[in-house]
Amino acid sequence: MIWQDILKIRTTSPLIHNITNYVVMNTTANALLAMGASPVMAHAIEEVEEMAGLAQALVINIGTLSGPWIEAMLKAGKEAHRRKIPIVLDPVGCGATQFRTHTVQRLINEIHPMVIRGNASEIKSLLDSGQGTKGVDSMHHPDEVFDDARSLSLTADCVVSVSGPVDLIVKGDEVVRIANGHPIMTKVTGMGCTSSAITAAFLAVNNSPIKAASHAMAVMGIAGEFAASKSIGPGSFLVNFLDFLYCMNEADIFQNLKMQYQPQTS
Amino acid sequence: MIWQDILKIRTTSPLIHNITNYVVMNTTANALLAMGASPVMAHAIEEVEEMAGLAQALVINIGTLSGPWIEAMLKAGKEAHRRKIPIVLDPVGCGATQFRTHTVQRLINEIHPMVIRGNASEIKSLLDSGQGTKGVDSMHHPDEVFDDARSLSLTADCVVSVSGPVDLIVKGDEVVRIANGHPIMTKVTGMGCTSSAITAAFLAVNNSPIKAASHAMAVMGIAGEFAASKSIGPGSFLVNFLDFLYCMNEADIFQNLKMQYQPQTS
Amino acid sequence: MIWQDILKIRTTSPLIHNITNYVVMNTTANALLAMGASPVMAHAIEEVEEMAGLAQALVINIGTLSGPWIEAMLKAGKEAHRRKIPIVLDPVGCGATQFRTHTVQRLINEIHPMVIRGNASEIKSLLDSGQGTKGVDSMHHPDEVFDDARSLSLTADCVVSVSGPVDLIVKGDEVVRIANGHPIMTKVTGMGCTSSAITAAFLAVNNSPIKAASHAMAVMGIAGEFAASKSIGPGSFLVNFLDFLYCMNEADIFQNLKMQYQPQTS
Repeated sequence: MIWQDILKIRTTSPLIHNITNYVVMNTTANALLAMGASPVMAHAIEEVEEMAGLAQALVINIGTLSGPWIEAMLKAGKEAHRRKIPIVLDPVGCGATQFRTHTVQRLINEIHPMVIRGNASEIKSLLDSGQGTKGVDSMHHPDEVFDDARSLSLTADCVVSVSGPVDLIVKGDEVVRIANGHPIMTKVTGMGCTSSAITAAFLAVNNSPIKAASHAMAVMGIAGEFAASKSIGPGSFLVNFLDFLYCMNEADIFQNLKMQYQPQTS
Repeated sequence: MIWQDILKIRTTSPLIHNITNYVVMNTTANALLAMGASPVMAHAIEEVEEMAGLAQALVINIGTLSGPWIEAMLKAGKEAHRRKIPIVLDPVGCGATQFRTHTVQRLINEIHPMVIRGNASEIKSLLDSGQGTKGVDSMHHPDEVFDDARSLSLTADCVVSVSGPVDLIVKGDEVVRIANGHPIMTKVTGMGCTSSAITAAFLAVNNSPIKAASHAMAVMGIAGEFAASKSIGPGSFLVNFLDFLYCMNEADIFQNLKMQYQPQTS
Repeated sequence: MIWQDILKIRTTSPLIHNITNYVVMNTTANALLAMGASPVMAHAIEEVEEMAGLAQALVINIGTLSGPWIEAMLKAGKEAHRRKIPIVLDPVGCGATQFRTHTVQRLINEIHPMVIRGNASEIKSLLDSGQGTKGVDSMHHPDEVFDDARSLSLTADCVVSVSGPVDLIVKGDEVVRIANGHPIMTKVTGMGCTSSAITAAFLAVNNSPIKAASHAMAVMGIAGEFAASKSIGPGSFLVNFLDFLYCMNEADIFQNLKMQYQPQTS
């Protein structure tokens, strides 16, 4: 249940270690704090192993990648994997450059993320190396990449969480669809990255990766709807979004949830 | 016409590649998204050439400069110049340290920016090497640097856009003055950097660099006036500023524009 | 007097050089601007000495530390110390990893900060090397670390400013306690870092380090109370907080101050 997870985040305040991009650090730290989690950002090769070992979940986000950060991501990720600390990988802009695509493939192979959370173009680029992405914004609808998400989930042995107008959370033949959210979320930087960070907070309190990933996307979507309904534009949206994460109650979630679970067929 | 440019940005969503400073990345990404553009931040030497080649405009901003970033700026800038992708150079804090001044001179010589957008002290420091700047805030009025802006525009063969109480956009003897804006904009970090980013968005849709630079400063100024009129202080200002960029309509621009064009005399 | 210091900051606009973490750069720059100070962020080894020499105060914050930044912190700090420019050291996350603890110890020994501003767990970790911190959030109340703060203040010959439900500002046997503030401040990233930055602004205008540090914590706490009273959650809190720093008047400070001074006993 989503609400139980939210309460667990609020009461246990899990430490979420983020190796993420410069653009969104402030926003994702604020979103994690508003949810009740305890974010820490640390990327130095000298400390990432120790920091990852203290955390209840690790976020690896390649949005503003560079050489030294890749080494830190690998080191932190391997330590987290060794200690069975769940990892969320956000392949920001994957497909736009070969550097990003190759780095994400290496990260998947070496750190074994529990959840890969990206937009449809990013997920597609991981399967279909001939396709390019335009920057970091998606040019595809999640439903277009269902087969890709399923394949990636099988080959990488993880949950694939594709954000978009309808979010798609896939693990093999298991599929969850979430129809919450609002178009203005694409006009605020870091909403995707924030959903990855929140996915990590749910992984810290829920042993089922597909449930954790789904609950995170549901909270993102409902918070987005609520914030959009109170806002004039993307400036006020972000303010209302953070306020909602802090103030939301059980009814806010229960009454607005548009989640559909499609069990494994066989 | 400004409004036609705004519509083009909204409908074509140009990709703007930013190699910019840590302080303002979030703000400038949000401003570009609110305008309808598609920002991407990427600075790794391994990918800047490829990313710049995908973009419709490139922003080079030296606000939190370091050695590896200079190499990336040069590489991205050369590739953009080679492909005729317009470049905006923001010489943040130029004049405060020799490192900044020398780097900006090198960038001008090697990447050939189409527009240099800075405050009066920054522009002055590029001509008058004996003068220091105090940090990143201007100690001069744009009108004091008209001759410097004109000279720089001629030697660097570019548009020089000087922000201040009255913005001055200069290309040789052509001058545009924009009297929009509000003093509270100097109390919000990244307003100058945001005007450089927005200049890039206009360059992506308008072939005239002086028009693109002028339209950007006009939108900044009008958005600033509107936001100031709704705000209590700099916190609410930024919220209202982003909302305005997203919501503005033709009348908002048309009815408030204070732009004066002074054609080339000869 | 706090209000006289605030007026001095507003009228003299001291340049505050920040070598700080990526997460909070935007927030601390905005807070300094709202107070009337002039922030600059610069971390390149090539320019930190020159920039520190221009500044009226220097902030060293280890929140997202890495090797090259440590070198820059040492270089800037030594130059500032040589020129008697006051330094605030913020040991973010000290105790969480050995890298952070060792770096802070080295910084204290080599740059001689005038004020060390941290939460109780961070301060404790500097005295009691066996104790770990969980990430960057405090697990201790300032009063628990009074003896540690006193010891650190004596060995490091500086003011120790411990933020928490009641802030504790200590220099040897002199103690100031400030009971202003609001719990929601722990749900907004960068509030601690902002109090360090504001401490630097007060050090720039007040020759007494214990008074400057106390005035900064008082303004933080009063601004926090005011903003909390107007806010729904942490999103609106930050907006109202920045607005207050810009708009506050003498009565706002005078009528709400909860400061207790305990003079040296002997």
